[in-house]
Amino acid sequence: MDLHGGNIYKIMRENQAEKLIDYSSNINPFGVPESLKEAVVDNFDLLTRYPDIDYVELREKIAKYNKLNQENIVVGNGAVEVIFMYMKTFKPNKVLIVSPTFAEYERALIKTTDAKIEYFELKESEEFVLNTQSLKERLNEKYDLLIICNPNNPTGKFIAKETMTDILEECNKFDTKLFIDEAFIEFVEGSLDNTIASEREINKKNLFILRALTKFFAIPGLRFGYGICFDKELKNRMECDREPWTVNAFAELAGKILLNDLEYIMKSENWVRKEKSFMFEKLSLVNNIKVYKTDTNFILIKLRKINSKELRKLMIAEGIVVRDASNFVYLDDRFIRLAVKDRETNIVVIDKLKKVLESLD
Amino acid sequence: MDLHGGNIYKIMRENQAEKLIDYSSNINPFGVPESLKEAVVDNFDLLTRYPDIDYVELREKIAKYNKLNQENIVVGNGAVEVIFMYMKTFKPNKVLIVSPTFAEYERALIKTTDAKIEYFELKESEEFVLNTQSLKERLNEKYDLLIICNPNNPTGKFIAKETMTDILEECNKFDTKLFIDEAFIEFVEGSLDNTIASEREINKKNLFILRALTKFFAIPGLRFGYGICFDKELKNRMECDREPWTVNAFAELAGKILLNDLEYIMKSENWVRKEKSFMFEKLSLVNNIKVYKTDTNFILIKLRKINSKELRKLMIAEGIVVRDASNFVYLDDRFIRLAVKDRETNIVVIDKLKKVLESLD
Repeated sequence: MDLHGGNIYKIMRENQAEKLIDYSSNINPFGVPESLKEAVVDNFDLLTRYPDIDYVELREKIAKYNKLNQENIVVGNGAVEVIFMYMKTFKPNKVLIVSPTFAEYERALIKTTDAKIEYFELKESEEFVLNTQSLKERLNEKYDLLIICNPNNPTGKFIAKETMTDILEECNKFDTKLFIDEAFIEFVEGSLDNTIASEREINKKNLFILRALTKFFAIPGLRFGYGICFDKELKNRMECDREPWTVNAFAELAGKILLNDLEYIMKSENWVRKEKSFMFEKLSLVNNIKVYKTDTNFILIKLRKINSKELRKLMIAEGIVVRDASNFVYLDDRFIRLAVKDRETNIVVIDKLKKVLESLD
Repeated sequence: MDLHGGNIYKIMRENQAEKLIDYSSNINPFGVPESLKEAVVDNFDLLTRYPDIDYVELREKIAKYNKLNQENIVVGNGAVEVIFMYMKTFKPNKVLIVSPTFAEYERALIKTTDAKIEYFELKESEEFVLNTQSLKERLNEKYDLLIICNPNNPTGKFIAKETMTDILEECNKFDTKLFIDEAFIEFVEGSLDNTIASEREINKKNLFILRALTKFFAIPGLRFGYGICFDKELKNRMECDREPWTVNAFAELAGKILLNDLEYIMKSENWVRKEKSFMFEKLSLVNNIKVYKTDTNFILIKLRKINSKELRKLMIAEGIVVRDASNFVYLDDRFIRLAVKDRETNIVVIDKLKKVLESLD
C-alpha cells in the first residue's frame, strides 16, 4: 500500500483511467491563483539564476505575514523537506506522536534518527478528539519531542489556541520540544488567529511550527513549505546542514506574493466554511457510513458493510479516487478520507458514494 | 568565503548594486527556452497535483534520450540532491576526488558519511590536464569511490571517452565505483557522443553519471538534475531512502520536453563552439593573466600582480561579478573563473577586465 494518498499517476497507470476525480488529496479547488500565474509569466527570467541560497527576502515576507522575525523562518522544498531537516538536525531519542496522523513524521524519524517512537492515541470512542488531560499526564514520561498535526490529518479535528498553549506549557516543564504541523491551518475558521506562533505571553523556545502554502493555494506541484522556529541554535544548525537551493525560483516567487493575495484568501475561506458543512450534512444522510465532523477541508469516514480497499476500488470504477485510510496508525480498513472540493464536484462524489454504498443494502 | 559562485543576491545586498552582470555562474545566455515558457503557460494546472512520486514518465523520457532504460534513471531537485542521495546511500569509506573541482561532492560526503577523503591533483604544471597514468596508479590504493567532474569545473578540461573507458576499467579491477559529474557535457563539442553512458562493450556496474538540465537550458532556478545508475541494487536503495516529491511539477515538465527542443540545442551548441574560442583568443591578449584553454562554457584564469579577492572587488565596481576561485582545493588566490556568455556581453567583460588589469602596470 502507498504511504500517501496523492499518487494519482500510479492509480491512472494501474487502472488505465484517463480522467479521475481525485478526492484523496486535499487541495483548494480554486486552483492556481491568477496572481501566481501572472507573476510566473512576468518572471521567467528568474529561472536563469540560482535562487538566493539564503532566501532572505522570502523569509522576510513570510516572517512579516506571521508577525515574526526572518530569523524565525526556515524554508523547504515542500513541508516534507522541513520535516526531514528538523528531525535529522534535532535527532530526538524519544518521541510521542499524537495519532492517527500524517505518516511522514514517523518516516523522517526512521530514516534519519534512531528515535524510540511512541504514539498517543486519539480514540475512536472519543470521536478522535484530543484528550488533553490524558496527553498532559503522558508527558510525565519525558519525551524529547511531541508531534501534533493541527488540524489533524486525517481526522480533521482542530485543537484551539488555549489548549495548545496549555500543552506547550506542559512540554516546557519537561523540556520536551513541541512540533506542530499547521499545513492545513488556513482552512480552519479564523485561520492564523488560531495559531500560537505569534503568542507573546509564553516561552516558545521548545516550539516548532510547520506550514505549507501548497494546500491552501493549490500548488502542491510547486513544492514549498516553511518552518517557524523559536530555538535560534537549532534553527542555525538546520540551515547549516541543509542542501543548497532546495526551494525553486517559482516556489520562492509564490512564497513572496501569495500571502498578499487577499482576494484568493477570502474567497477560499468563504468556500471552505460553507462547503465543509454542506458535505458533512449530505454525507450524514448516506447509509452505511459514519461521518466525523471536520474543522478543515477533508473528512474522515467510517465504513460499515464494506472495507476501505473494496470501496476504493468501486469508487475508482466510478471515476473517483478516495483515500483508503487503513494504513494510518490506530485506523484500519473501516476508514476512508475524502477531500472537500467545489460544490458541483462534491455533489457528484456524494451521489456516487451513495450509489455504491446503498447498493450494499 | 562562499562555497559557491552563484550567490549574486548576497553580492547585490552587500554592494547595494541594482544591476550586476553575473560571470560567476555558467548558464546558457540564450535564457529560458521558449518551448518551456509555452509549456508552463499551457500547464499551470500541473501545480494543483503532487508530482508523480515515482516520476515514471519523466524517467522514461530521460532514459530514451540517453538510449537507456528508465530503471537506470534517478531524478533529483537539482544535481545537488542527486549527489547527496548517492553519497548518503552508498556511504563510501575511502574516496578519491580529482581536484580542483566542484565542492559539493566533498560537502555531501562530509555531511552524510564518515568517508576518508583524498584528492588526486590536476597539476598547474600540467595545465590542469588529467595525468591518466598517474591516476590509474593511484587507484592501487583501493578506494570505494573515485569522483571526476567532466568537463571539469573550474578548469574547463574534458576527458575523452576512450580515456574515461580506460579509467572505468581500472576502477573495475579494484571494485572502485566511478562517479562522473557530466553537468556541463552538453556544452562540449559532440555533446553526448562523448559520454560512456551508452557504451556497450564495458561493465558499467560501478559507474554512476550525474547530469543537470539546468546549465544548458538556463534554468538553474527550476532545480532539476538526474543520475544514470547501472547498479540496480544501489539505485533501488537510493529511491527507497529519498524524500518524496522533491522534483517540482515544472521541473518534471522541463525534463520531459527540453531534451526534444532541437532548435535550442543546436543554436546553443553553435554558440558555445564559437564563443569559447573567441573569449580564449581575446583574453589571451590581455596583460597580467594566463588563460587556460577550455572545452566548455567557462574559463579558468590565473592572475598576476593582483589577487582574486581584490580583482573581484574591482570588477564588482565595474558592474561585473567574477568567480573568485581561491577556495577550490589546489587553487589559491591567483585564480578566477569566468563564464562564457553572448558576444556582446563577453566583449564588455573582456574590456572591463582589460581596463582593470592593465591599470596595474
